[in-house]
Parts: sequence; C-alpha cells; structure tokens
Amino acid sequence: MLKLCDPPAGETSGSLTQAFFSAIRSQSVARTAPLSVEDCAAQSMPDASPAKWHLAHTTWFFETFVLERFEPGFKPFDPAFRVLFNSYYNGVGEKFSRPQRGLLTRPSLNEVLAYRRDVDARMLKLLQTAAGQSEMIALLELGLQHEQQHQELIVTDAKHLLSLNPLYPAYGLALEAAATVRDAAWLKFPAGVVEIGYGGDEFCFDNETPKHRQFIEAYSLASKLVTNAEFAAFIADAGYERSEFWLSEGWDWVRSNQIAQPIYWRREGDGWAEFTLQGVGPLQPRQPVSHISYFEASAYALWAGARLPTEAEWEAALKCDPMPEQMFGSVWQWTSSAYAPYPGFVPAAGAVGEYNGKFMVNQYVLRGSSLATPKGHSRATYRNFFPAHARWQFSGMRLAK
Amino acid sequence: MLKLCDPPAGETSGSLTQAFFSAIRSQSVARTAPLSVEDCAAQSMPDASPAKWHLAHTTWFFETFVLERFEPGFKPFDPAFRVLFNSYYNGVGEKFSRPQRGLLTRPSLNEVLAYRRDVDARMLKLLQTAAGQSEMIALLELGLQHEQQHQELIVTDAKHLLSLNPLYPAYGLALEAAATVRDAAWLKFPAGVVEIGYGGDEFCFDNETPKHRQFIEAYSLASKLVTNAEFAAFIADAGYERSEFWLSEGWDWVRSNQIAQPIYWRREGDGWAEFTLQGVGPLQPRQPVSHISYFEASAYALWAGARLPTEAEWEAALKCDPMPEQMFGSVWQWTSSAYAPYPGFVPAAGAVGEYNGKFMVNQYVLRGSSLATPKGHSRATYRNFFPAHARWQFSGMRLAK
Amino acid sequence: MLKLCDPPAGETSGSLTQAFFSAIRSQSVARTAPLSVEDCAAQSMPDASPAKWHLAHTTWFFETFVLERFEPGFKPFDPAFRVLFNSYYNGVGEKFSRPQRGLLTRPSLNEVLAYRRDVDARMLKLLQTAAGQSEMIALLELGLQHEQQHQELIVTDAKHLLSLNPLYPAYGLALEAAATVRDAAWLKFPAGVVEIGYGGDEFCFDNETPKHRQFIEAYSLASKLVTNAEFAAFIADAGYERSEFWLSEGWDWVRSNQIAQPIYWRREGDGWAEFTLQGVGPLQPRQPVSHISYFEASAYALWAGARLPTEAEWEAALKCDPMPEQMFGSVWQWTSSAYAPYPGFVPAAGAVGEYNGKFMVNQYVLRGSSLATPKGHSRATYRNFFPAHARWQFSGMRLAK
Amino acid sequence: MLKLCDPPAGETSGSLTQAFFSAIRSQSVARTAPLSVEDCAAQSMPDASPAKWHLAHTTWFFETFVLERFEPGFKPFDPAFRVLFNSYYNGVGEKFSRPQRGLLTRPSLNEVLAYRRDVDARMLKLLQTAAGQSEMIALLELGLQHEQQHQELIVTDAKHLLSLNPLYPAYGLALEAAATVRDAAWLKFPAGVVEIGYGGDEFCFDNETPKHRQFIEAYSLASKLVTNAEFAAFIADAGYERSEFWLSEGWDWVRSNQIAQPIYWRREGDGWAEFTLQGVGPLQPRQPVSHISYFEASAYALWAGARLPTEAEWEAALKCDPMPEQMFGSVWQWTSSAYAPYPGFVPAAGAVGEYNGKFMVNQYVLRGSSLATPKGHSRATYRNFFPAHARWQFSGMRLAK
Repeated sequence: MLKLCDPPAGETSGSLTQAFFSAIRSQSVARTAPLSVEDCAAQSMPDASPAKWHLAHTTWFFETFVLERFEPGFKPFDPAFRVLFNSYYNGVGEKFSRPQRGLLTRPSLNEVLAYRRDVDARMLKLLQTAAGQSEMIALLELGLQHEQQHQELIVTDAKHLLSLNPLYPAYGLALEAAATVRDAAWLKFPAGVVEIGYGGDEFCFDNETPKHRQFIEAYSLASKLVTNAEFAAFIADAGYERSEFWLSEGWDWVRSNQIAQPIYWRREGDGWAEFTLQGVGPLQPRQPVSHISYFEASAYALWAGARLPTEAEWEAALKCDPMPEQMFGSVWQWTSSAYAPYPGFVPAAGAVGEYNGKFMVNQYVLRGSSLATPKGHSRATYRNFFPAHARWQFSGMRLAK
Repeated sequence: MLKLCDPPAGETSGSLTQAFFSAIRSQSVARTAPLSVEDCAAQSMPDASPAKWHLAHTTWFFETFVLERFEPGFKPFDPAFRVLFNSYYNGVGEKFSRPQRGLLTRPSLNEVLAYRRDVDARMLKLLQTAAGQSEMIALLELGLQHEQQHQELIVTDAKHLLSLNPLYPAYGLALEAAATVRDAAWLKFPAGVVEIGYGGDEFCFDNETPKHRQFIEAYSLASKLVTNAEFAAFIADAGYERSEFWLSEGWDWVRSNQIAQPIYWRREGDGWAEFTLQGVGPLQPRQPVSHISYFEASAYALWAGARLPTEAEWEAALKCDPMPEQMFGSVWQWTSSAYAPYPGFVPAAGAVGEYNGKFMVNQYVLRGSSLATPKGHSRATYRNFFPAHARWQFSGMRLAK
Repeated sequence: MLKLCDPPAGETSGSLTQAFFSAIRSQSVARTAPLSVEDCAAQSMPDASPAKWHLAHTTWFFETFVLERFEPGFKPFDPAFRVLFNSYYNGVGEKFSRPQRGLLTRPSLNEVLAYRRDVDARMLKLLQTAAGQSEMIALLELGLQHEQQHQELIVTDAKHLLSLNPLYPAYGLALEAAATVRDAAWLKFPAGVVEIGYGGDEFCFDNETPKHRQFIEAYSLASKLVTNAEFAAFIADAGYERSEFWLSEGWDWVRSNQIAQPIYWRREGDGWAEFTLQGVGPLQPRQPVSHISYFEASAYALWAGARLPTEAEWEAALKCDPMPEQMFGSVWQWTSSAYAPYPGFVPAAGAVGEYNGKFMVNQYVLRGSSLATPKGHSRATYRNFFPAHARWQFSGMRLAK
Repeated sequence: MLKLCDPPAGETSGSLTQAFFSAIRSQSVARTAPLSVEDCAAQSMPDASPAKWHLAHTTWFFETFVLERFEPGFKPFDPAFRVLFNSYYNGVGEKFSRPQRGLLTRPSLNEVLAYRRDVDARMLKLLQTAAGQSEMIALLELGLQHEQQHQELIVTDAKHLLSLNPLYPAYGLALEAAATVRDAAWLKFPAGVVEIGYGGDEFCFDNETPKHRQFIEAYSLASKLVTNAEFAAFIADAGYERSEFWLSEGWDWVRSNQIAQPIYWRREGDGWAEFTLQGVGPLQPRQPVSHISYFEASAYALWAGARLPTEAEWEAALKCDPMPEQMFGSVWQWTSSAYAPYPGFVPAAGAVGEYNGKFMVNQYVLRGSSLATPKGHSRATYRNFFPAHARWQFSGMRLAK
C-alpha cells in the first residue's frame, strides 16, 4: 500500500511521491496495451465503461480535485472534459449520461493520452512543492487509490466486451494466475467481541471506518475457495432449475434472463469451456469459480449445506494463525453482508464524500482481492461492493457455517 | 398474541382454539366491509393484490397446509383454486401470475366467501379433535398469523387503489387514530452486548430466531416519530431536489419517477392535503409522517443531521424504562438494517419454509407496527420488511444518532 | 342501417327516433347480461376496456356532444365523469389514463346504469322536440353508430378477459353462429376505374368519404373465407417457424412474443381446441379462422401462394352478381390497405373530427363485419381498422390474387 | 444510373464494368475519410450502424451473393464474417444482433479494409470473364446499388453519432449544398389514369415494379420544399403543443419523447441553431427543412392547411413541363403513401428477395433523393421508406392539396 507520510531516509518527500505517482499512473495505460483503439472506445453494457473513459476519468479526478484547487493559475486542459468525464459526482456539476459513454468517439484515444500526459506533468510539478500540504497529499492518495480501482475495471470491462464478440478475442495480458485450490478444511472460530474496520494511520477509504466492535457467534470458515469443479457439480445436480436453493429475487433473475451457468462458461460437448483473459479454453476444474453473482453464490451455498460468511466473520478470520488460504489475489469473495455504514461512519467532506456513502443500499460486500487487483491495493478491512446480480467482476465465494 | 398451548382453566383446548380461529378469520371479512364488489376485485399495481384475492389466499393457506394434510378424506373445494390462490410457494406447484390477479373476475366474491365458509367449517370440525396434534396446531397458528398479515395488506392495498381514483373515495372504516406526537427528546443507550431475537415459547416467525448476541456501540434514539410538519420542512428546504441527501439509487428513483412528496400528499394552495382512509383532507401536522419509502426516510435523516436506527438498536431500546413513545400501533419504522438471516437461522421445514428466508435480499427491516396491524399481531422481535422504494405501507420513521 | 331523416308515413319523426334510440341503447346493456359485476369492471390489456367503461363512455358521448349543447338548462350528471369517461377527445379536455380504466372501481356498475337511465330520459325528452334540428340529429346518429361500435367491443373485450382466466368461463350469450364455409372458387374481376366510398345521403362515417375513383388492375378474389382447417395446415407446415412467409416486423413479433397459433387456439393432444364465447371446445375445422393479426393473415396468404385484397378490390367485388360468400356477418377481413384518407377527405368539424382522421397511420383496414357486429351496423363502404398485431377482434381473412 | 448492358463502342463490357465497380466501391471508403477509427466503430442507436459495419456488410454482399456462387474455387475471406456482417437475410443463415453492432471492436477497421481489398480484387478478376453472364451481372448491379444505399447511411449514421457528442464535431466532408428555396407556387394537375412504376430495361429495385395504372383525382403540388423558416413559424405557433395537428400516434410520440423541434435544431437565444455536417451553426431560413419525421411532416401540413402528396401524385408530377423544383438532390420527401406492394409485385428470387418485400408494413414512402444520395442513385420511380418516427435521414417535405 502506498504510504506517503513516512518516506525512507535520504529521500525528499517530493521525489518519492513523484515516483509513486508515476508508477501507479503508468499501470493504467499498461493495462490497455493489449486493446485496440476500437476496443478502448466501446461500452458493452451500462455497468461497464470504455477503457478510454477510464483513462480520462482517472485523469479528470486529479485535475478536478487536486490541480483545480492547488495549482497556481490553474486552467483546465479542456473545459468540456469536466462534464464528459465526471462519473457520478453531483457536487461537481453536470455529467455525461453513463450508458452512452461508448458514443464518445471524440476525444480520441490519442487526445486522452495527451490529456493524461499534460495532467501528469502538472501533477509532478505540483508535487515538487507538496511537502507539508497534507490536504493535497490526502487527495493525491485518494486519487491514486481511485486509479487502482479503475485499473481493475479496465480489465473486467474489457473482458466483458471481448466476451460478446463471436470471435472470442483474448485480452492476453499476463495477470498472476489464480492459485490452484488444494484440500479443504473447516476452520473454527469462537464466539466473542471483535474489532472490525480500519484504525491505522495509513490510507483507507472512508467506508472502512470507524474501527468498532461487533459480537460474532461461533462459526466455521472453509479454508479454501469454491472451485469450478464443485460449481459444476451444483449445475449437474440441476442447481439452476431447483427453486429451493434460490433467493426469490434470484430465482426471478434466473428465469427472466434464462441463466444456466456462470457468465463466461460455455457448454462444449459433455463438458464446459470458459472464456478467460486468454480466450476460450477448457474449464480448469481446480481453479476457484469466478464471475458469479451474489444470487449464484447464495444458491450454491444452500445447495452445499452451508452459507456465505458475514464480512465481520471474514475479517476476523484474518487474525488467526494460520489464516485461511486464498484470502487475497485470486477472486473477490461475496459475503452475506449488505453494504452499510459502520456505526459512527462519517463520509469524507466535500464532493469526494460521494465516493462511498451514497451507494450503501441494495449492494453486497465482497472481501479480499482478485488477480486483477493492482499490487498493493488490498487490505484486511477493504470493502468492495456490487449489486446482487453483478457478475462481470472476478467474484467468487468461500463457504461458512 | 395468540397462545394455543396454555388455555385457561375450565376450557378445553379445542373450543378455545375454535374461538380464536373464528375471531381472527372474521376480521378479514370485516376489513372488506367498506369495499364494493368491484373494489374487492381490482389490483392497483403488481405489488398489491385484490381484497378478494387476500380472502381466498388466506383460505387456501389453511386448505393446503392444514386440511390437505390432516383432514380425513380430504377433497379440495375446487382443484383450480390450488393454482389460482397460491402466492409464491414453489414447493406447492404452479401459481397464477401475480401482476394479473386483478383479471381473476371469476371466482366471484360470493364464491370466495363460500370458499371461506366451507374451509372454516371444516377447520372448526378438525379443531374439535386437535388436542395434542402439535404439528397441526403449529400450522394453524402460522396460518392465523399469516391471515393477520394479509389483514393489514387488505387495508394498504385498498387505500392505494382508492387513491388512484380521481373521485378519491374514502375507505372509511374506523381504525385507531395515530397518536398525536408530543415533545421529543434524545434517549441515550450505552454500548454493550445485547440479546436480539425471539427466545420464548410462544408463536414467532422463523425470521425472528434464533435469539443471539450483538454488540451495539453507544447510541441515541428519538423518543418520538418524525411528524408530517417536520417532513414538510424537509420539502420546503428543497429536500427532494438536493442530491446530497439521497442515496444514489434513491436519487435515480426520485428523478425517474418525478417524486416530490410522500405518495398520498397533494399540493393544495400553499399547503398540503393528504389522502387518508377517510378521503382527502388537510395534512395533520402533528401526526407521524407515513407512507414514505426507505429512500425518503434515509434522505430526511441525513437532512436532519441524524440517521435511521439499526434493528438491533430499535429492539434493545424496548427494554428501557420508560421505553420511547410510539413504538407500536402508529406507523412501521424503517431501520437501516438490510433484511438478513440471524446467525444460526434455519428456515421452517417444508413449503412453509418459503415464508421468510427466500426474501432476505434487497429489502429493509421495519420495526414496530401500524394502525392497520391487527390487535395482538405485534411483538418486540417482529421483523417486517419491504424494498427500499416501497411506500404504500404505513411506513414512517424515528431518528437515531 | 338507422335512417332518421325519412320516417314512415303516419309517424312523427320524434317518436320514431325515440324508438330507434331506445332500441340501440338497450342493446349495450343486453350485451353485458352474461357478465358479473366483477367482469364488467376489469381491463385485460391496455387495448381493451371494461364493459362498465363502455357503458359509461357511450353515455358520456351523448351527454357531451348532444345534451350539453342542445338541452336547455343543461347540468352534468356528475362533473367528474367528463374526465373519467372521455376516451381520446383532446378537444374536450383532460382524459383518464387509458391503461388504468380497470382501476375505476367507482363509480360502481349500478351508478353507471343510473347514469345511463338519466341520460336516456333526458335524450328522449329532447328528441320529442328534435324535428328539424338537423345538426342535433346528425350528432345523435353519430352517437348511436358509436354506441354500436362499442357494442362489438363489449364482446371482444369480455372474450379476451375471460380467456385469461384459467377457469375459461363462457360468455355464453348466443350470437349468430358463423356460417360454415362451403367449397371455394376464384372469382375474377376485370381491370378498370371503379368508384369507392360512400356517396349516399344516409349515415356514414367521415372516413368513408368522399366517393372517388380508383383504377384497379384485373384480380381474383376467393369466394369464401379461409377456414380453421386451412389455417391449421399452415401451422402443420411449420408456418410460424419459417421466416420466409413473414413480414420482417411480423417475424420479430412472432419471435419476441413466442407466438405459435391464433390467440384463442390451445393444443389438445394431437389437435386443437379453441376458446370461444361458449368456453373451450374442439376447433371447428369448417368455420372461418378468426382472431388473427394482419401479420398472421399476411403470412398465411404468402404460404398459400396468394395475397390479401386491397380494400378497393374488396369493395368493388360487392357490386358483382353473385357477390362472394361471407362478406358480412362472420369475421372482419384484413385487407392489405393501410388506413389512409381518401382523396379529398375532410374530417368532421369540432371535437367529433377526432373520431377517425387522427388514427390514419400504422393501421390496416378490415372490411365486412363480424358475428359480433350489431344488426344494421354494416355497409359496403365501412372501414374498420386496427394495428397489424391486433388479434382480439373477430378478424379473419379472404385470399386474393 | 449505372447501366451495364450497353457499353460505349470500343470498350469491352468487362473493363467498363470494372471501372464502374471500382468507382462506386471507392466512394464508400471516401465517405469515411473524415471519421476517426473510433467514429467508424460506434453505433449511436439500434436503427443506425457503425461506418465500419457498412464497409464490411457491403463487401459481405458481394462475397455472399456473387463470389460464393460464381468464383471458381471460392473460399471465404473469414468464415466468421458470414454471420457478423449479415444484416437481415434469414435465407443466408444466422446474423449478429443488430443493436450490438457497436460492440464488434474486432475485426478492426484495418482488417475490414483488407477484407474490402481482397473481395474487390477477386471481383475485378471475376468481371474480366463476366461477359454474357447475365445473372451474375444482375447481382453485381444489385450489389452496387445496395452499396450506394449504404453510402447514404454512412453519412446519416455518422451525423447522428456526432450529434450526440457534447463537443458537436463536424463531419466536414463537402456534400453538395442544398439549393436555396425560391418563391413558391401551386402547380395543378388534372385527374386521370397515370402509369406508375418502372417499366424500362435498366436497373431498378423490385419494389418499383411492375409498372401499372392508377387513377389520380385532380390535385395541386407545391413547386418547392417546405423551408426552415416556414417550419420555425409552425413551432412559433405552438405547433408541437397543439394536439389538433397531430396524428394520434404522433401526439403520443411527441409527448412521451418530449419532442419540441426537429432533431438537429437547438434553441439559441431567441432563435435556432442547427447541427449540420459542418457542425453547429445558425439555422439557414431559406433552406429546406430536413430531418423531420412523418409525424412532424403530417402535423406541419395540417397546420399549413394542406397535406402530403401520395407517391403516385409525386411521381406523376415529374412528367410535367416544367417539373416542380427540387425534386431530387436536396431532401427526401415524405409522401402519405404507406409502403406497399404494387399490384402484381413479385419479390426477386432467392435470398435477395428479402431486400424489399418483407418491409412492406408500417413504413411510409419517401420520394426524390437527398444531398447525401450518391450521384446516379436516383430515379423517378425510386421508393425510399422509413417508419413514421424516423428522422435521422435527410427527410423533408413538399405540400400538396
């Protein structure tokens, strides 16, 4: 995790920050390297965004929340971008209609890259004199964390787009392969009061605070993630056709969308193929199941005689020794916890206060991180969240009892 | 609350049960007394049902879950009713399309009333010999509680139907008037582990179990409900036009449905009128605001510098002396708690297990009871639940900090 | 056809008109005799209306267009009815939302019948002194023709409602049975200029005027209607699965609505049953196919190596001797003619000018009349019209070449 | 118009055909010159297609209907393209979902251009030996006419896409400016039988045949097109707010889409700006109004005390001397004629028979041609057609009486 306030000896704060900034910013562009100009411009569904838009919006974030406020003699790169690349900040003004982001053929990818270079240069110049400006550093840090979140979305959105093309093109960029799952065990945890949430002095999102107490009844957690082979057994047992495993709303979702398998699975003869970042290939039975919705995770758990863990159970388990396998870096793990404010939660001040709090309804928390999560962008207390039907993220599951 | 297992001395269990049964069943019909034959047949929206359907469905419940199983030589009143009046029990077989219940002009209201009389007679006969049949008694009890839930819906659904008629007809049946709200205070509660959920030996729904422990941080609860006058001040302060108070999904709901006031409020000159069970009249400023959605409750709370309580905070406050005003009998109170299973929750066995558990997603818990809740049908641990946009129920709010 | 201007000798114009008026008005109520109060109040789809609404709206027509203008000291029966029972006359003011007519549980059927009696009494009184008031008589005549159109809709709308009820109740009123179809022949007609449209001095709708000339190339017309057996052969030949027979928009309609047979046909073993006014029974092979859409008629014709006639071809054929069988009284016959104004068409003046002209887009003309058309309400030049997907009318077809 | 069967002396048929082929094919690519790679890939609405798709689909047409049948040893350029670039030919097999054409980021524009080059080379080779192969020449000719239709769509679809971008980019390619409209007159035409449709021996589409007779009553036609200034007067007279001018379905369209002006007009102070191929500029009052729907044309005509001409009236007027101004090359002109088969119409054989006939429902005929119509691609008998709500074409109007 980026830590800006405590640089190593012998380095000035400014130069270290500059290096961090450049390193993280360059990762966004690197993730678009396998994509064509056309891939970068298309939007596959309202929930997803074009890669070009991600590149521009993350730049807009620095221009709007840092440069506009702290750069002497600030002038916008292009005033129209203020509206075009605002995502959802009502406090900042108008925003372009989300489902139409794929129609923004102008500015071109090259112009967006020029926009990035311009803002990057201005940011680096500003950072040379940033020492002691704690408010600016806090916004910079938020901007970089925000950028990393969009780096994951660049991958998931591109994967979804390519999956709709009958040519099934590969994204191809090598991301760390998901660990092969080994033998499972039920790990037992006692009842008691635990502390949940972030209480340190480094960066975290506002939704991870405040640190607070929760009482957890005794529970068990699977040592490993649910695998493709296990999920295939659920399907083979008519899992998608038996209403008794499904939440009522999930059952409606299955029926009206005619859903019969995870989004990237394809029937192939008697077995299954899967569309991955490397194109279509045979389903890997020992890898964690991925790209499932909360509804699917919940139905599988009921079929398996278990349930999903709460986010508190998940977080508390991290403090055990040894901690359960595969908590990070493979797939995000659905919890049964609705995304809600912690007791005493106060959103950040200003427009960045719209970052998290206003989404705390009808979404469910995922914990951990995925193979597409940038290095350093994971945390024991990190709360990812998506609606119950979403499945284009690298979302899997771990059982609890 | 109905308690079947412990009859007063000198009474046989059977005859007491019969009296309870008849008393509760007759209340359903009584609640349709102000309605015309046509009122009883219409369905105002997919979430609501015709009164005739409620009368038939509650009867179907006894026929399907009690008579079919326990009555010697059982024959259905009409085999077609098994499908027509099944609500959502997949375990029982096919069901008629919910949004089309208003098209079921046959059977007529008279035929449905005949159906009720037939099932009632058979139930009473069965109850004469019911002593000791604990499973049947449990199902009977569930059926009566279920009937009482539909009694509340008969009123809320009729109110909604009549509100859409430009003639604004009154429902007119005298229900206990909502208490006038007096001066408010913040009641403080300490942090600590509390016991939540039902642990007694009388009737409760499965979703109230098991009794378990939760840790609650220190909090304050308003002694009284939010009033119409207070809610009008929120509107006067442009509450429906300022995105900063709203959950993101709530803001979309406001905009796409052009919502600018509670569902039954009407502008009248400079002030407000309200459609109530007695027709349209001036808004009563000191009565609790009612018929608001979770989105509206949440926005109001933020505007007021407060928040909604969790259901645990609400339930824990009941054990205080004196307990806060107006916890029951006025309006249901939105909590910030998503409807979820308690730790260790196990649904009831068989088709009646579909009663609660499968709805535990994307809904929010309301606590207390309303003026339309039947006498005896409320409980400290009772969990009502509706989606965040629902507002045709008698749903109001109490602030917390 | 009603003719008001030329009463038989020895009768005063007024008393004859009164008798006509009462006779036609009473037919509307007679057609609701088989329906229950609840049947009369329900609306099965936005295109259909409740029978109660038909009874009220036809009364509103006389109150609005005749009494309000000609009755001394006119007072409305109920001012609210002006909005409630306006169908589509923008010139008359606001109107109640069409798809919600089924929610108008008030006024009750009894109140609507009282409304009819009141307006009828006032109309009869007015008619006593009507001699020579040609403008009033013209509006009266239009009102009675309008009433007869709604009499047909009372039957088709009730049939559609009852068809959605799993109990399949019979409407039951004996309407003249459709004639059994006998052997077919192709009748040939020469090319030439023909006169089309109404040129007489009795009643007709404005859309039948002016009489004008059209040139028709030589054509052949089937002597008889297409039968159920013939249509079943089309289905047996995979007619609903072969895109080559279908208009592109029709093919989309078939696929997205999963349509595989006429709306009231039901598979029964290897054969077909049909829901009729008498309930469900075996399909009658020699009766004319009914309740098909323009899309279905067009696809059948192409499959049969023929086409639909134009409305001019249909009308011109009536002047032949002998004229083709079954032109009237069985089923309306789709023509290939889009509903459009005749050359020189001028809508009637005032709000009644909205009667026809504004619907002349994206609809197709049907000619003839059906078993549900009131006696006297058919004419060689009569132009019925519905959208291409509509099929709840008694709509069939005759082939042309 | 391209005429292949009668080459000038001294030329071999093959080389002339090759020159024609290359000249027309190159125009498609030329029309995409002002567009970026991203512009070429985006789809602004289901009715429009990406320019890249147009380039590929027109190539697919030659590959599928000519090369596959006549090229010795035919091998497809890429088998997947058969599905990807089929538009609506059910007879040819599967087709890619139309509303998702903007998601086909692969193949890239460069690959599509390579596809064009490959097919062009093979076509030219085939044409060297084409003499006497009349069936192939007929398909070639159809393919080139088809290509020219898509050339117009390349412009209209690009214009629509760019209009949705808040940057309002100009398309910029110089197309012949629309003629400025001069003084108007009513031209009178007598009643009589006229011949309509194509009867020559050069190319025409099947929907223009057979030549046949129609009787037309006497009529007048405006010598000129309706101008922007005239249409602005209709708006100033509350034309979009007065239901009396609108077809009922048009009025619903206006209300539910909140339409208050032609699609590319923008309020600017007290006046109007218009988005054109050159970007946004002041509305040109003397130019023909363009981009209006049939609904708008029909409402304007009624407001102006006139009507739209039928297509027969339009076509017959061309034979007069002098013929009315601006019949071609400015804007397509809505007629009041529903798109329907001429008497005796027989679709072309095989899959190309799907070209026209199956669209003959719920569309209206436009006559003439527009500034975006390729040179040589217009004809007295040409029948363009679109649904009544369409307005992204260069569609205007001429009045009739």
